[in-house]
Amino acid sequence: MADSKKAHETIAVMTELVLPNDTNVYNNLRGGKILHWMDMAAAISAQKHSNAQVVTASVDSVSFKNPIRIGTVVTIHSKVTRSFKSSMEVFLEVWAENIPERKKYKSNEAYYTFVAIDDFGRPTPVPELIPETEDEKKQYDGAKRRRELRLILSGKMKPEESVDLKALFFKDIKDILAK
Amino acid sequence: MADSKKAHETIAVMTELVLPNDTNVYNNLRGGKILHWMDMAAAISAQKHSNAQVVTASVDSVSFKNPIRIGTVVTIHSKVTRSFKSSMEVFLEVWAENIPERKKYKSNEAYYTFVAIDDFGRPTPVPELIPETEDEKKQYDGAKRRRELRLILSGKMKPEESVDLKALFFKDIKDILAK
Amino acid sequence: MADSKKAHETIAVMTELVLPNDTNVYNNLRGGKILHWMDMAAAISAQKHSNAQVVTASVDSVSFKNPIRIGTVVTIHSKVTRSFKSSMEVFLEVWAENIPERKKYKSNEAYYTFVAIDDFGRPTPVPELIPETEDEKKQYDGAKRRRELRLILSGKMKPEESVDLKALFFKDIKDILAK
Amino acid sequence: MADSKKAHETIAVMTELVLPNDTNVYNNLRGGKILHWMDMAAAISAQKHSNAQVVTASVDSVSFKNPIRIGTVVTIHSKVTRSFKSSMEVFLEVWAENIPERKKYKSNEAYYTFVAIDDFGRPTPVPELIPETEDEKKQYDGAKRRRELRLILSGKMKPEESVDLKALFFKDIKDILAK
Amino acid sequence: MADSKKAHETIAVMTELVLPNDTNVYNNLRGGKILHWMDMAAAISAQKHSNAQVVTASVDSVSFKNPIRIGTVVTIHSKVTRSFKSSMEVFLEVWAENIPERKKYKSNEAYYTFVAIDDFGRPTPVPELIPETEDEKKQYDGAKRRRELRLILSGKMKPEESVDLKALFFKDIKDILAK
Amino acid sequence: MADSKKAHETIAVMTELVLPNDTNVYNNLRGGKILHWMDMAAAISAQKHSNAQVVTASVDSVSFKNPIRIGTVVTIHSKVTRSFKSSMEVFLEVWAENIPERKKYKSNEAYYTFVAIDDFGRPTPVPELIPETEDEKKQYDGAKRRRELRLILSGKMKPEESVDLKALFFKDIKDILAK
Repeated sequence: MADSKKAHETIAVMTELVLPNDTNVYNNLRGGKILHWMDMAAAISAQKHSNAQVVTASVDSVSFKNPIRIGTVVTIHSKVTRSFKSSMEVFLEVWAENIPERKKYKSNEAYYTFVAIDDFGRPTPVPELIPETEDEKKQYDGAKRRRELRLILSGKMKPEESVDLKALFFKDIKDILAK
Repeated sequence: MADSKKAHETIAVMTELVLPNDTNVYNNLRGGKILHWMDMAAAISAQKHSNAQVVTASVDSVSFKNPIRIGTVVTIHSKVTRSFKSSMEVFLEVWAENIPERKKYKSNEAYYTFVAIDDFGRPTPVPELIPETEDEKKQYDGAKRRRELRLILSGKMKPEESVDLKALFFKDIKDILAK
Repeated sequence: MADSKKAHETIAVMTELVLPNDTNVYNNLRGGKILHWMDMAAAISAQKHSNAQVVTASVDSVSFKNPIRIGTVVTIHSKVTRSFKSSMEVFLEVWAENIPERKKYKSNEAYYTFVAIDDFGRPTPVPELIPETEDEKKQYDGAKRRRELRLILSGKMKPEESVDLKALFFKDIKDILAK
Repeated sequence: MADSKKAHETIAVMTELVLPNDTNVYNNLRGGKILHWMDMAAAISAQKHSNAQVVTASVDSVSFKNPIRIGTVVTIHSKVTRSFKSSMEVFLEVWAENIPERKKYKSNEAYYTFVAIDDFGRPTPVPELIPETEDEKKQYDGAKRRRELRLILSGKMKPEESVDLKALFFKDIKDILAK
Repeated sequence: MADSKKAHETIAVMTELVLPNDTNVYNNLRGGKILHWMDMAAAISAQKHSNAQVVTASVDSVSFKNPIRIGTVVTIHSKVTRSFKSSMEVFLEVWAENIPERKKYKSNEAYYTFVAIDDFGRPTPVPELIPETEDEKKQYDGAKRRRELRLILSGKMKPEESVDLKALFFKDIKDILAK
Repeated sequence: MADSKKAHETIAVMTELVLPNDTNVYNNLRGGKILHWMDMAAAISAQKHSNAQVVTASVDSVSFKNPIRIGTVVTIHSKVTRSFKSSMEVFLEVWAENIPERKKYKSNEAYYTFVAIDDFGRPTPVPELIPETEDEKKQYDGAKRRRELRLILSGKMKPEESVDLKALFFKDIKDILAK
């Protein structure tokens, strides 16, 4: 296992142009295609952090707001937020830009997790991630709570076993009870 | 808006063969490609329910357990679980089958939501969904709770506004407090 | 070589959405693309029967009646009709469905034959196929005649060597002579 | 409808390189992919003859003999053999060439038929085809018999209604009876 | 026509992963595929500069030094160097990175030119480009000489009509004569 | 290394139909796609000459004049013009044909160079090329000058080291000086 990496060392930028086969009959980009592109960008960030081959372990819930039209330039920014034993959480932001019409807006965000694997396909340890900016530190702190939620949602952890989420739940519950 | 539909009328079955361009360097299917295929299958189910054009609104968190190798036959079953005003929740099950080696296993499950749109791209009402089997009724009941969780996770609903989840939370909390 | 298989155990269902690159300038699905999709579906049925790798040996004549438009959902059903020494005949039915317009019709039918091959690429024996329904039995019986016709059309059998077709020919000829 | 065309004016040559996604797990070109490429080449020949848009009407039975490996150069020659009212028969020959190993062999032959259509998608008359070489004249004569067989196989003509095939059948039958 | 743009406002970054279909039989990326990706990236830069649709006008000579292997991450940086009446020169740098092996090297450079077009496909004026860094100023100055060379190579300008190149040629010639 | 080859033995003809994903938002073929197709055709010509695997070494400057619309048939003719130690220059001509509108025109020309490589990826000698027609002889003679220009443009040769170009330059300069 190598030395720690700084968050900004794991940045990947991907640009795609929305072509006819990427769209539905209304000429809007399919949600499934964005999920596919995000997986490619996130895998590159996870590779940059681990210097290893990586496999997608999970995707957190993603919601799509605005339709993205054919001919639009889609830009995906991805960055590792935190590493665990052999897994990494990657945060992605997706922008859509219609350049001739000078319109640019954020399409959506997502969290993917990847596992680094060795030459035999077994999980292998990854370096520690060092957050530096305020945003990176916030993402780093949130990563632990999101990981607990992921484990609960996939049935691998019982709600009452969660450490960080429980604290939040109590707080919520107290607020609710207080009403 | 048309008459109600029965759950089994919305079933879509998709079969894909894992080809070289779908895989990573270890010859395993990329997670992003599965997400893309599931989006296509789920859209067909949502179309069957609504008899309208549909757009992906969200994907719930998905986790991938077993790698799927090149040459594998991937079969996706999708079915609408419940409809809301103009949106529908679709449940998907993904199987991977290596036929020469007689191995077949469930790769993963997922929930996608779609919105039906009219010719001007505006949300349009969809028929009611009638669950019939035990499984369909269970999915139908759970759909409301999953919808609240989706709204909370995407920041559109505050935890204390949830009706169905709150009841669950209270129960969990009571269990936790009881320890 | 394994035990016999029942016809229904070899069913494969494939769903494809007609995208821009699949069509000609009139936005209708190309015939060559359907032939390609049917080959994939039929190969999966042949794999299910033989639990071996398979290669396409032949396609019987196929005719296309109705144009299939972009955005249409194409569903292909394939099933092995009969097995010979190391080859299998697969029957396919192709439906086209424009879901928003509630139109569904059979586009065409086809027979493909496949040969099972071992790890060295040599033909390898396949199990017997057991037809169960009336339709399956009819297809099973017809398979022998179609096989003779295939051998005659590809120049591998002389018309007078055919056993099943000759009987039919005689009958036809008698009818013709009787006029 | 335009003036007559000579057979050689309808020649189209297509070259494709067998890439990973075109092959099965044994690295051999899929039969369905050849059928797809042949459809593209044949459509261009039919366009050259009719100077109109064309749609695939049928494919005659095709058999595949030798596997074609990845990296092979596939060359398809297509030429219209005869035109009928608004349809054209196209003959195709497919060669496979492994250039570094200096191996070139004919992979297979096929007959496709196309219908010329006008701007409203309706069949439109096509010019007469003038065969010039010996081969072209042979193909021209055979086209009528193949057309009758096509109509019989697709159930559009009864065997006893065939003019050209009947003569052949009688001859065969006489030969058979003479034994 | 809009206001002037600064060079850095036209930067586009594209990341692609080398997949099986992008490679030759030695598993190295085809030169034609890089040229295709560079065209996409350069078009986005030209769009950013002109806020218009753009078409490729020319590519300067490109040479490829090191083979790029399958699984490599290819990153393309593109930036407009100078604009003329309705055309723009774009400079591209291509890096190849094998992340698990921690190898990154520049694969090649290229100059593409694009023409901005209006809704009727006619050339339309583009803003002026403002170079700011030393590198950008060097590229800006060189753009005029490269443009003359392009016009000479494509036969649109006679060598003796060139203003900037002639000066260089004289210098060279003088050096040569002086030997 | 094998015997010499005649120029016409290296001809490759490629036909492609412009499909939606090959075009920009104005439905015109992208320049990058033509460059990609030319690379495939030229590689086949270089393989035919060398009977070896080949890699793209360079592309000379290419300019695109007329837009090529969707549905157009693009035909590429390629032929080796001359061989050097282990490299070959290939000349390509690209025609675009709108068959229903009976319009055919030359789209552009290009020179690609390839290097033949052995099983270890090392450059390997190629046969001599024998030009026969007037055109082939002209291309053969020009190949040496184009090679010098390529080396100068890529910085591998100094202008004053060129043998053939220098003679030309002197002539030009004399003409210029004479004015």
